[in-house]
Amino acid sequence: MSVTAVRATDSRHRFIDAATRLFARHSFAGTSLQMIADEVGVTKSAVHHHFRTREELLTAVVEPLAGELRAAVAAAETQRTRRARAERMLTGFIDVVIRNRVLVPVLVGDPGAIETLRSHADMSDLGERLLKLLADVDPGVGGWIKADLTVSGIACGMGVRALELDDDLLREHLVGAGRRILGLRAPRCLR
Amino acid sequence: MSVTAVRATDSRHRFIDAATRLFARHSFAGTSLQMIADEVGVTKSAVHHHFRTREELLTAVVEPLAGELRAAVAAAETQRTRRARAERMLTGFIDVVIRNRVLVPVLVGDPGAIETLRSHADMSDLGERLLKLLADVDPGVGGWIKADLTVSGIACGMGVRALELDDDLLREHLVGAGRRILGLRAPRCLR
Repeated sequence: MSVTAVRATDSRHRFIDAATRLFARHSFAGTSLQMIADEVGVTKSAVHHHFRTREELLTAVVEPLAGELRAAVAAAETQRTRRARAERMLTGFIDVVIRNRVLVPVLVGDPGAIETLRSHADMSDLGERLLKLLADVDPGVGGWIKADLTVSGIACGMGVRALELDDDLLREHLVGAGRRILGLRAPRCLR
Repeated sequence: MSVTAVRATDSRHRFIDAATRLFARHSFAGTSLQMIADEVGVTKSAVHHHFRTREELLTAVVEPLAGELRAAVAAAETQRTRRARAERMLTGFIDVVIRNRVLVPVLVGDPGAIETLRSHADMSDLGERLLKLLADVDPGVGGWIKADLTVSGIACGMGVRALELDDDLLREHLVGAGRRILGLRAPRCLR
Protein backbone atom coordinates (compact mmCIF):
# COMPACT_ATOMS: atom_id res chain seq x y z
CA MET A 1 0.00 0.00 0.00
CA SER A 2 1.22 3.52 -0.76
CA VAL A 3 1.63 6.06 2.06
CA THR A 4 -1.49 7.86 0.80
CA ALA A 5 -3.50 4.63 0.84
CA VAL A 6 -2.34 3.86 4.41
CA ARG A 7 -3.39 7.36 5.51
CA ALA A 8 -6.79 6.96 3.85
CA THR A 9 -7.28 3.62 5.67
CA ASP A 10 -6.26 5.28 8.95
CA SER A 11 -8.82 8.07 8.57
CA ARG A 12 -11.47 5.54 7.62
CA HIS A 13 -10.78 3.62 10.83
CA ARG A 14 -10.82 6.80 12.93
CA PHE A 15 -14.25 7.68 11.52
CA ILE A 16 -15.53 4.15 12.14
CA ASP A 17 -14.24 4.17 15.75
CA ALA A 18 -15.75 7.59 16.45
CA ALA A 19 -19.07 6.56 14.87
CA THR A 20 -19.21 3.39 17.00
CA ARG A 21 -18.74 5.42 20.21
CA LEU A 22 -21.31 8.05 19.19
CA PHE A 23 -23.91 5.49 18.01
CA ALA A 24 -23.57 3.75 21.41
CA ARG A 25 -24.02 7.05 23.27
CA HIS A 26 -26.70 8.80 21.20
CA SER A 27 -28.24 5.99 19.08
CA PHE A 28 -27.87 5.79 15.32
CA ALA A 29 -30.70 8.25 14.62
CA GLY A 30 -29.25 10.69 17.16
CA THR A 31 -25.79 10.83 15.55
CA SER A 32 -25.10 13.15 12.62
CA LEU A 33 -22.08 13.19 10.27
CA GLN A 34 -21.32 16.62 11.82
CA MET A 35 -21.08 15.05 15.30
CA ILE A 36 -18.70 12.40 13.94
CA ALA A 37 -16.57 15.12 12.32
CA ASP A 38 -16.48 17.03 15.65
CA GLU A 39 -15.51 13.88 17.58
CA VAL A 40 -12.56 13.21 15.23
CA GLY A 41 -11.72 16.92 15.03
CA VAL A 42 -12.11 17.38 11.27
CA THR A 43 -14.58 19.13 8.99
CA LYS A 44 -17.79 17.48 7.84
CA SER A 45 -16.49 17.42 4.26
CA ALA A 46 -13.53 15.31 5.42
CA VAL A 47 -16.03 12.70 6.63
CA HIS A 48 -17.98 13.05 3.36
CA HIS A 49 -14.83 12.17 1.42
CA HIS A 50 -15.05 8.64 2.90
CA PHE A 51 -18.76 8.19 3.64
CA ARG A 52 -21.53 9.97 1.78
CA THR A 53 -24.28 9.10 4.26
CA ARG A 54 -24.67 7.89 7.85
CA GLU A 55 -26.06 4.67 6.36
CA GLU A 56 -22.76 4.04 4.52
CA LEU A 57 -20.89 4.61 7.76
CA LEU A 58 -23.20 2.24 9.67
CA THR A 59 -22.57 -0.47 7.07
CA ALA A 60 -18.80 0.04 7.44
CA VAL A 61 -19.11 -0.05 11.25
CA VAL A 62 -21.04 -3.32 11.10
CA GLU A 63 -19.04 -5.13 8.38
CA PRO A 64 -16.38 -6.78 10.65
CA LEU A 65 -19.06 -8.03 13.07
CA ALA A 66 -21.22 -9.26 10.16
CA GLY A 67 -18.23 -11.19 8.79
CA GLU A 68 -17.60 -12.89 12.15
CA LEU A 69 -21.29 -13.74 12.52
CA ARG A 70 -21.45 -15.13 8.97
CA ALA A 71 -18.51 -17.45 9.78
CA ALA A 72 -20.10 -18.56 13.09
CA VAL A 73 -23.44 -19.37 11.44
CA ALA A 74 -21.74 -21.27 8.61
CA ALA A 75 -19.63 -23.28 11.10
CA ALA A 76 -22.72 -24.19 13.16
CA GLU A 77 -24.63 -25.29 10.04
CA THR A 78 -21.97 -27.92 9.25
CA GLN A 79 -22.60 -29.79 12.54
CA ARG A 80 -24.40 -33.14 12.30
CA THR A 81 -27.13 -33.05 14.96
CA ARG A 82 -29.65 -30.35 15.94
CA ARG A 83 -28.16 -30.15 19.44
CA ALA A 84 -24.61 -29.88 18.14
CA ARG A 85 -25.69 -27.14 15.71
CA ALA A 86 -27.42 -25.21 18.51
CA GLU A 87 -24.47 -25.64 20.90
CA ARG A 88 -22.00 -24.45 18.25
CA MET A 89 -24.23 -21.50 17.31
CA LEU A 90 -24.71 -20.49 20.96
CA THR A 91 -20.98 -20.42 21.76
CA GLY A 92 -20.09 -18.87 18.40
CA PHE A 93 -22.68 -16.12 18.86
CA ILE A 94 -21.48 -15.36 22.39
CA ASP A 95 -17.88 -15.07 21.14
CA VAL A 96 -18.94 -12.59 18.44
CA VAL A 97 -20.96 -10.55 20.97
CA ILE A 98 -18.10 -10.43 23.47
CA ARG A 99 -15.57 -9.42 20.80
CA ASN A 100 -17.95 -6.58 19.81
CA ARG A 101 -19.22 -5.59 23.27
CA VAL A 102 -19.46 -1.86 22.58
CA LEU A 103 -21.14 -2.09 19.19
CA VAL A 104 -23.66 -4.86 19.85
CA PRO A 105 -26.10 -2.96 22.10
CA VAL A 106 -26.40 -0.25 19.42
CA LEU A 107 -27.34 -2.70 16.71
CA VAL A 108 -29.77 -4.79 18.69
CA GLY A 109 -31.65 -2.07 20.46
CA ASP A 110 -31.78 0.89 18.12
CA PRO A 111 -34.83 0.80 15.82
CA GLY A 112 -33.14 3.31 13.47
CA ALA A 113 -30.06 1.12 13.09
CA ILE A 114 -32.12 -2.06 12.75
CA GLU A 115 -34.30 -0.53 10.02
CA THR A 116 -31.22 0.51 8.05
CA LEU A 117 -29.47 -2.84 8.48
CA ARG A 118 -32.54 -4.86 7.46
CA SER A 119 -32.45 -3.24 4.03
CA HIS A 120 -28.69 -3.90 3.76
CA ALA A 121 -26.64 -6.88 2.71
CA ASP A 122 -27.44 -10.25 4.26
CA MET A 123 -27.93 -9.15 7.89
CA SER A 124 -31.63 -10.00 8.00
CA ASP A 125 -31.09 -13.45 6.47
CA LEU A 126 -28.16 -14.07 8.83
CA GLY A 127 -30.33 -13.30 11.87
CA GLU A 128 -32.97 -15.78 10.67
CA ARG A 129 -30.39 -18.56 10.18
CA LEU A 130 -28.94 -17.89 13.64
CA LEU A 131 -32.38 -18.05 15.31
CA LYS A 132 -33.36 -21.18 13.36
CA LEU A 133 -30.22 -23.03 14.52
CA LEU A 134 -31.14 -22.30 18.15
CA ALA A 135 -34.92 -22.79 17.74
CA ASP A 136 -34.62 -26.22 16.05
CA VAL A 137 -33.70 -27.88 19.37
CA ASP A 138 -37.37 -27.59 20.36
CA PRO A 139 -39.60 -27.49 17.24
CA GLY A 140 -42.61 -25.21 17.57
CA VAL A 141 -43.40 -21.78 18.93
CA GLY A 142 -41.68 -22.45 22.27
CA GLY A 143 -38.38 -23.06 20.51
CA TRP A 144 -38.60 -19.74 18.68
CA ILE A 145 -39.43 -17.80 21.84
CA LYS A 146 -36.50 -19.40 23.67
CA ALA A 147 -34.18 -18.65 20.74
CA ASP A 148 -35.37 -15.01 20.60
CA LEU A 149 -34.97 -14.63 24.35
CA THR A 150 -31.47 -16.13 24.28
CA VAL A 151 -30.24 -13.94 21.42
CA SER A 152 -31.89 -10.77 22.75
CA GLY A 153 -30.82 -11.40 26.31
CA ILE A 154 -27.19 -12.03 25.37
CA ALA A 155 -27.01 -9.09 22.99
CA CYS A 156 -29.10 -6.51 24.90
CA GLY A 157 -27.73 -7.48 28.29
CA MET A 158 -24.32 -6.08 27.34
CA GLY A 159 -25.05 -3.06 29.50
CA VAL A 160 -22.96 -1.22 32.03
CA ARG A 161 -22.63 -4.14 34.44
CA ALA A 162 -21.49 -6.60 31.77
CA LEU A 163 -18.96 -4.11 30.42
CA GLU A 164 -17.06 -4.21 33.72
CA LEU A 165 -16.60 -7.98 33.58
CA ASP A 166 -13.65 -9.92 32.26
CA ASP A 167 -14.31 -11.60 28.87
CA ASP A 168 -13.75 -15.18 30.10
CA LEU A 169 -16.01 -14.87 33.13
CA LEU A 170 -18.73 -13.23 31.04
CA ARG A 171 -18.46 -15.96 28.40
CA GLU A 172 -18.74 -18.75 30.98
CA HIS A 173 -21.88 -17.26 32.54
CA LEU A 174 -23.55 -16.44 29.22
CA VAL A 175 -22.90 -19.91 27.81
CA GLY A 176 -24.30 -21.45 31.02
CA ALA A 177 -27.43 -19.29 30.93
CA GLY A 178 -27.94 -19.86 27.18
CA ARG A 179 -27.69 -23.62 27.61
CA ARG A 180 -30.25 -23.53 30.43
CA ILE A 181 -32.78 -21.55 28.37
CA LEU A 182 -32.39 -23.76 25.33
CA GLY A 183 -32.31 -26.97 27.35
CA LEU A 184 -28.96 -27.93 25.85
CA ARG A 185 -27.55 -29.64 28.92
CA ALA A 186 -29.92 -31.83 30.87
CA PRO A 187 -29.18 -32.33 34.58
CA ARG A 188 -27.06 -35.46 35.06
CA CYS A 189 -29.89 -37.41 36.74
CA LEU A 190 -32.08 -37.05 33.63
CA ARG A 191 -29.53 -38.39 31.15
CA MET B 1 -64.60 17.18 34.17
CA SER B 2 -65.68 20.01 31.86
CA VAL B 3 -66.00 19.40 28.12
CA THR B 4 -62.83 21.45 27.58
CA ALA B 5 -60.91 19.37 30.11
CA VAL B 6 -62.10 16.15 28.46
CA ARG B 7 -60.95 17.48 25.08
CA ALA B 8 -57.55 18.43 26.51
CA THR B 9 -57.15 14.92 27.95
CA ASP B 10 -58.16 13.45 24.59
CA SER B 11 -55.52 15.47 22.73
CA ARG B 12 -52.93 14.54 25.33
CA HIS B 13 -53.70 10.85 24.76
CA ARG B 14 -53.59 11.24 20.98
CA PHE B 15 -50.12 12.79 21.22
CA ILE B 16 -48.94 10.05 23.60
CA ASP B 17 -50.27 7.31 21.28
CA ALA B 18 -48.67 8.91 18.22
CA ALA B 19 -45.36 9.40 20.07
CA THR B 20 -45.33 5.74 21.16
CA ARG B 21 -45.78 4.55 17.56
CA LEU B 22 -43.13 6.95 16.20
CA PHE B 23 -40.58 6.17 18.95
CA ALA B 24 -41.01 2.46 18.14
CA ARG B 25 -40.50 3.10 14.42
CA HIS B 26 -37.75 5.75 14.40
CA SER B 27 -36.26 5.58 17.95
CA PHE B 28 -36.60 8.37 20.49
CA ALA B 29 -33.71 10.40 19.07
CA GLY B 30 -35.11 10.00 15.55
CA THR B 31 -38.55 11.42 16.40
CA SER B 32 -39.17 15.18 16.46
CA LEU B 33 -42.16 17.08 17.86
CA GLN B 34 -42.85 18.07 14.24
CA MET B 35 -43.16 14.39 13.24
CA ILE B 36 -45.58 13.82 16.11
CA ALA B 37 -47.63 16.84 15.01
CA ASP B 38 -47.70 15.48 11.43
CA GLU B 39 -48.76 12.00 12.62
CA VAL B 40 -51.72 13.46 14.57
CA GLY B 41 -52.47 15.98 11.81
CA VAL B 42 -52.05 19.18 13.85
CA THR B 43 -49.49 21.99 13.97
CA LYS B 44 -46.32 21.79 16.03
CA SER B 45 -47.60 24.53 18.34
CA ALA B 46 -50.63 22.37 19.21
CA VAL B 47 -48.19 19.73 20.48
CA HIS B 48 -46.21 22.43 22.30
CA HIS B 49 -49.37 23.43 24.14
CA HIS B 50 -49.24 20.05 25.96
CA PHE B 51 -45.54 19.13 25.89
CA ARG B 52 -42.72 21.65 25.72
CA THR B 53 -40.03 19.09 24.85
CA ARG B 54 -39.67 15.57 23.54
CA GLU B 55 -38.37 14.63 27.00
CA GLU B 56 -41.65 15.72 28.61
CA LEU B 57 -43.53 13.62 26.09
CA LEU B 58 -41.31 10.60 26.74
CA THR B 59 -41.98 10.90 30.47
CA ALA B 60 -45.74 11.02 29.81
CA VAL B 61 -45.46 8.01 27.47
CA VAL B 62 -43.60 6.02 30.11
CA GLU B 63 -45.62 7.01 33.20
CA PRO B 64 -48.32 4.28 33.03
CA LEU B 65 -45.70 1.55 32.49
CA ALA B 66 -43.54 2.99 35.30
CA GLY B 67 -46.55 2.89 37.65
CA GLU B 68 -47.24 -0.77 36.83
CA LEU B 69 -43.58 -1.67 37.29
CA ARG B 70 -43.42 0.20 40.62
CA ALA B 71 -46.42 -1.84 41.86
CA ALA B 72 -44.89 -5.13 40.66
CA VAL B 73 -41.54 -4.43 42.36
CA ALA B 74 -43.25 -3.41 45.62
CA ALA B 75 -45.42 -6.57 45.57
CA ALA B 76 -42.36 -8.79 45.01
CA GLU B 77 -40.45 -7.12 47.85
CA THR B 78 -43.14 -8.12 50.36
CA GLN B 79 -42.58 -11.86 49.74
CA ARG B 80 -40.83 -13.81 52.50
CA THR B 81 -38.15 -15.88 50.77
CA ARG B 82 -35.59 -14.98 48.09
CA ARG B 83 -37.10 -17.55 45.72
CA ALA B 84 -40.64 -16.28 46.31
CA ARG B 85 -39.47 -12.68 45.71
CA ALA B 86 -37.73 -13.68 42.45
CA GLU B 87 -40.70 -15.75 41.27
CA ARG B 88 -43.14 -12.89 41.98
CA MET B 89 -40.82 -10.35 40.31
CA LEU B 90 -40.37 -12.55 37.23
CA THR B 91 -44.08 -13.06 36.65
CA GLY B 92 -44.92 -9.44 37.56
CA PHE B 93 -42.29 -8.12 35.15
CA ILE B 94 -43.50 -10.36 32.32
CA ASP B 95 -47.09 -9.13 32.85
CA VAL B 96 -45.96 -5.49 32.64
CA VAL B 97 -43.91 -6.20 29.50
CA ILE B 98 -46.79 -8.02 27.78
CA ARG B 99 -49.28 -5.26 28.65
CA ASN B 100 -46.83 -2.74 27.11
CA ARG B 101 -45.57 -4.83 24.18
CA VAL B 102 -45.25 -1.94 21.71
CA LEU B 103 -43.54 0.51 24.05
CA VAL B 104 -41.09 -1.80 25.81
CA PRO B 105 -38.63 -2.40 22.94
CA VAL B 106 -38.24 1.39 22.53
CA LEU B 107 -37.34 1.92 26.16
CA VAL B 108 -34.97 -0.98 26.56
CA GLY B 109 -33.08 -0.67 23.34
CA ASP B 110 -32.83 3.00 22.55
CA PRO B 111 -29.76 4.67 24.12
CA GLY B 112 -31.37 8.11 23.65
CA ALA B 113 -34.51 7.11 25.54
CA ILE B 114 -32.52 5.31 28.24
CA GLU B 115 -30.29 8.35 28.82
CA THR B 116 -33.33 10.60 29.22
CA LEU B 117 -35.15 8.17 31.51
CA ARG B 118 -32.13 7.63 33.79
CA SER B 119 -32.16 11.30 34.68
CA HIS B 120 -35.94 11.18 35.30
CA ALA B 121 -38.01 10.17 38.27
CA ASP B 122 -37.29 6.83 39.89
CA MET B 123 -36.81 4.72 36.74
CA SER B 124 -33.14 4.02 37.37
CA ASP B 125 -33.73 3.02 41.01
CA LEU B 126 -36.68 0.85 39.96
CA GLY B 127 -34.52 -1.05 37.48
CA GLU B 128 -31.91 -1.74 40.16
CA ARG B 129 -34.55 -3.07 42.61
CA LEU B 130 -36.01 -5.29 39.88
CA LEU B 131 -32.60 -6.76 38.99
CA LYS B 132 -31.66 -7.26 42.65
CA LEU B 133 -34.84 -9.26 43.33
CA LEU B 134 -33.94 -11.63 40.48
CA ALA B 135 -30.18 -11.70 41.15
CA ASP B 136 -30.52 -12.54 44.86
CA VAL B 137 -31.51 -16.13 44.07
CA ASP B 138 -27.85 -16.80 43.24
CA PRO B 139 -25.61 -14.37 45.15
CA GLY B 140 -22.52 -13.25 43.21
CA VAL B 141 -21.69 -12.14 39.71
CA GLY B 142 -23.44 -15.14 38.11
CA GLY B 143 -26.75 -14.08 39.66
CA TRP B 144 -26.44 -10.56 38.23
CA ILE B 145 -25.60 -11.82 34.74
CA LYS B 146 -28.57 -14.19 34.80
CA ALA B 147 -30.86 -11.40 36.04
CA ASP B 148 -29.59 -9.00 33.33
CA LEU B 149 -30.02 -11.67 30.67
CA THR B 150 -33.55 -12.50 31.83
CA VAL B 151 -34.71 -8.88 31.93
CA SER B 152 -33.00 -7.94 28.65
CA GLY B 153 -34.12 -11.09 26.89
CA ILE B 154 -37.74 -10.68 27.92
CA ALA B 155 -37.85 -6.96 27.14
CA CYS B 156 -35.73 -6.87 23.96
CA GLY B 157 -37.16 -10.09 22.57
CA MET B 158 -40.53 -8.40 22.00
CA GLY B 159 -39.76 -8.17 18.31
CA VAL B 160 -41.82 -8.93 15.27
CA ARG B 161 -42.24 -12.63 16.00
CA ALA B 162 -43.39 -12.10 19.61
CA LEU B 163 -45.87 -9.43 18.52
CA GLU B 164 -47.79 -12.01 16.50
CA LEU B 165 -48.32 -14.28 19.50
CA ASP B 166 -51.29 -14.42 21.81
CA ASP B 167 -50.63 -12.87 25.27
CA ASP B 168 -51.28 -16.07 27.27
CA LEU B 169 -49.05 -18.26 25.13
CA LEU B 170 -46.27 -15.68 25.19
CA ARG B 171 -46.57 -15.34 28.97
CA GLU B 172 -46.38 -19.09 29.51
CA HIS B 173 -43.22 -19.44 27.40
CA LEU B 174 -41.51 -16.37 28.88
CA VAL B 175 -42.21 -17.47 32.47
CA GLY B 176 -40.87 -20.94 31.67
CA ALA B 177 -37.71 -19.59 30.06
CA GLY B 178 -37.16 -17.04 32.86
CA ARG B 179 -37.49 -19.75 35.52
CA ARG B 180 -34.98 -21.93 33.69
CA ILE B 181 -32.37 -19.14 33.46
CA LEU B 182 -32.77 -18.15 37.10
CA GLY B 183 -32.93 -21.74 38.32
CA LEU B 184 -36.29 -21.13 39.97
CA ARG B 185 -37.72 -24.58 39.32
CA ALA B 186 -35.37 -27.46 39.83
CA PRO B 187 -36.04 -30.65 37.86
CA ARG B 188 -38.20 -33.03 39.95
CA CYS B 189 -35.38 -35.52 40.55
CA LEU B 190 -33.25 -32.83 42.19
CA ARG B 191 -35.85 -31.70 44.74
